[in-house]
Amino acid sequence: MALIVQKFGGTSVGSIERIEQVADKVKKFREQGTDLVVVLSAMSGETNRLIDLAKQITDKPEPRELDVIVSTGEQVTIALLSMALMKRGVPAVSYTGNQVRILTDSAHNKARILQIDDQKIRADLKAGRVVVVAGFQGVDEHGNITTLGRGGSDTTGVALAAALKADECQIYTDVDGVYTTDPRVVPQAQRLEKITFEEMLEMASLGSKVLQIRSVEFAGKYNVPLRVLHSFKEGPGTLITIDEEESMEQPIISGIAFNRDEAKLTIRGVPDTPGVAFKILGPISAANIEVDMIVQNVSHDNTTDFTFTVHRNEYEKALSVLENTAREIGAREVIGDIKIAKVSIVGVGMRSHAGVASRMFEALAKESINIQMISTSEIKVSVVIEEKYLELAVRALHTAFELDAPARQGE
Amino acid sequence: MALIVQKFGGTSVGSIERIEQVADKVKKFREQGTDLVVVLSAMSGETNRLIDLAKQITDKPEPRELDVIVSTGEQVTIALLSMALMKRGVPAVSYTGNQVRILTDSAHNKARILQIDDQKIRADLKAGRVVVVAGFQGVDEHGNITTLGRGGSDTTGVALAAALKADECQIYTDVDGVYTTDPRVVPQAQRLEKITFEEMLEMASLGSKVLQIRSVEFAGKYNVPLRVLHSFKEGPGTLITIDEEESMEQPIISGIAFNRDEAKLTIRGVPDTPGVAFKILGPISAANIEVDMIVQNVSHDNTTDFTFTVHRNEYEKALSVLENTAREIGAREVIGDIKIAKVSIVGVGMRSHAGVASRMFEALAKESINIQMISTSEIKVSVVIEEKYLELAVRALHTAFELDAPARQGE
Repeated sequence: MALIVQKFGGTSVGSIERIEQVADKVKKFREQGTDLVVVLSAMSGETNRLIDLAKQITDKPEPRELDVIVSTGEQVTIALLSMALMKRGVPAVSYTGNQVRILTDSAHNKARILQIDDQKIRADLKAGRVVVVAGFQGVDEHGNITTLGRGGSDTTGVALAAALKADECQIYTDVDGVYTTDPRVVPQAQRLEKITFEEMLEMASLGSKVLQIRSVEFAGKYNVPLRVLHSFKEGPGTLITIDEEESMEQPIISGIAFNRDEAKLTIRGVPDTPGVAFKILGPISAANIEVDMIVQNVSHDNTTDFTFTVHRNEYEKALSVLENTAREIGAREVIGDIKIAKVSIVGVGMRSHAGVASRMFEALAKESINIQMISTSEIKVSVVIEEKYLELAVRALHTAFELDAPARQGE
Repeated sequence: MALIVQKFGGTSVGSIERIEQVADKVKKFREQGTDLVVVLSAMSGETNRLIDLAKQITDKPEPRELDVIVSTGEQVTIALLSMALMKRGVPAVSYTGNQVRILTDSAHNKARILQIDDQKIRADLKAGRVVVVAGFQGVDEHGNITTLGRGGSDTTGVALAAALKADECQIYTDVDGVYTTDPRVVPQAQRLEKITFEEMLEMASLGSKVLQIRSVEFAGKYNVPLRVLHSFKEGPGTLITIDEEESMEQPIISGIAFNRDEAKLTIRGVPDTPGVAFKILGPISAANIEVDMIVQNVSHDNTTDFTFTVHRNEYEKALSVLENTAREIGAREVIGDIKIAKVSIVGVGMRSHAGVASRMFEALAKESINIQMISTSEIKVSVVIEEKYLELAVRALHTAFELDAPARQGE
């Protein structure tokens, strides 16, 4: 019998009405003869309410105690769903992270799963019960309650699917799948039937906030087929799986990701000596600023230019660190720009297709969009452009890589 | 070092402000060098909110799942108080019933404590920590979360005090102690310094709703000195302890209890044959109606009259059951009265004093109050009177047994 792990997020269980809808959905699956483990988040808003309570006591709640409080959110939803299932004649049982037992390390508020005991769950499945598990939480070896950090319910779902060798882990969300790009920017964007873990990771980290990155990494590592679906609309969603190299018709590019959260900093006229990159980025990292793209041009007159991007919120901080560095190492000047955007094409197909980058640059050139920075990986090419051209660039690339949906009848 | 278990109820932790006040109080005790275990209820209203959530799903929530939900209430308060203590520089740690581990049977929603593991708590106390434990909850041998039923936090406190051989279990409430009678009826009512477990049981079951009966039974059984105190006012409260027979000056009567929640039913002209009491009360019990006082008069013409009291809410139901029985056994008639009240004098002192009952009857006679029923136990005499005489009776008895507080200066 097929075994599926289904994860529903906070919005999907945000009210009693919603929980009843989830119960209807789960019942339908159960009647099709599927073994089911359901992972739930807290009702939307509840985790924040609980954190607020703690914050009223102290600005810096003790992490162990914060986990004790915050973990109650899922504890409520799992019992409510179990009741709703039983009301429908579907045998069900709820388990907290401790009860399962989902063993984690002791890093409170951001714990990592070490091991999952599948005994209880297997016995319940065998007895015909739907098992409803609290997401986002676990227990350490000393019996302390831990939480996996925000979005951790996805990770719980994937980890359970891996431990139980489930046929699929379904993540129910408020979108009906992963799209070739943001439909708000490109109305012709299409839902992808299938995407690889690697592509999904590149898409997610580049701004398509459908799934928690950690859960995708986890799914890839343990090869758990992951499916993104809409909680309350019918549809096949998007399957995230390994690249089986079978798909001859696989498009070169799976999607166009973009974001406008970054800012660019350039230090110019840097004496080109060994270790200069560390001299520049060391202090940035020491200031806890995360760097995304890094570009160093070839040397010219024994000096070089060094450019990188940081999150826009950290631009001012990074600028001041960099200006200090510039004085110390005798660089000519520091310049920056926050009105930039990053656009990336992502696809495992580019591995076997030459000229993908140049096709991208051509499409941008046709629209007279100037490229400020370029960075490439095996399955991704990213460019930084002036922010105002962002939508234009995304649409041009979406068309150039033949991702546009065919016009529907009557359109 | 002295070890005290302190229990704070829902009103005492009903807001962040209140929790901060409790933290101040606990800190003060800690600074006096006392080892402390603090037992908490959920914030007032929270348990009802959680039950309401469940009731929105189903009228009859599955008991196991209801416990999963309801137990989150205390889980939140224990962590909040621990944080508040740590903010004050007092090392503290919170434990759920499962974490302690408070082992109970599997009777969800009304579980009984079987065993308490004191290892973790002892280790924490030794390390100088205040241990904050969730009241009202435990875990069964299969790891299922259980709750002890309403008011169960008192029982948790007493059970912990017994397991840890604590010097005292302090129950903080919204009254400053146990009184000789209800001060709203008798302004001269006095706070008792000390009362025995047995007296407290009689007082509690007769309407002085200060402590949960089960916790008093428990305290008596394990001889845990219990003290009732006001959460936010200073004062010694009332100590509930064993009768040490030392107190030569012990008053005969400790208090006057009363209630008006009962109704009286009489079946008259019952053929007086063996087993008639069972024939009458069997159907009442089968209908799940609890009976309080029972009086059977001596036989007269081979028939007898049989009178008992039930809760007023169950009067109509009991009446209809009794009328059926009367037809079956050929009794003459059934009469009833809901306008009655029960007044009781309670005190271990009456064991060694003859004539206590007659002194009671004399005091009532002086006020021309007719006694309808009488029932006695070793440390209690109860009478049923017409409801309208209740306050008069209580005041008369309070004076007759010398319980009135001496008039204060200026009064």
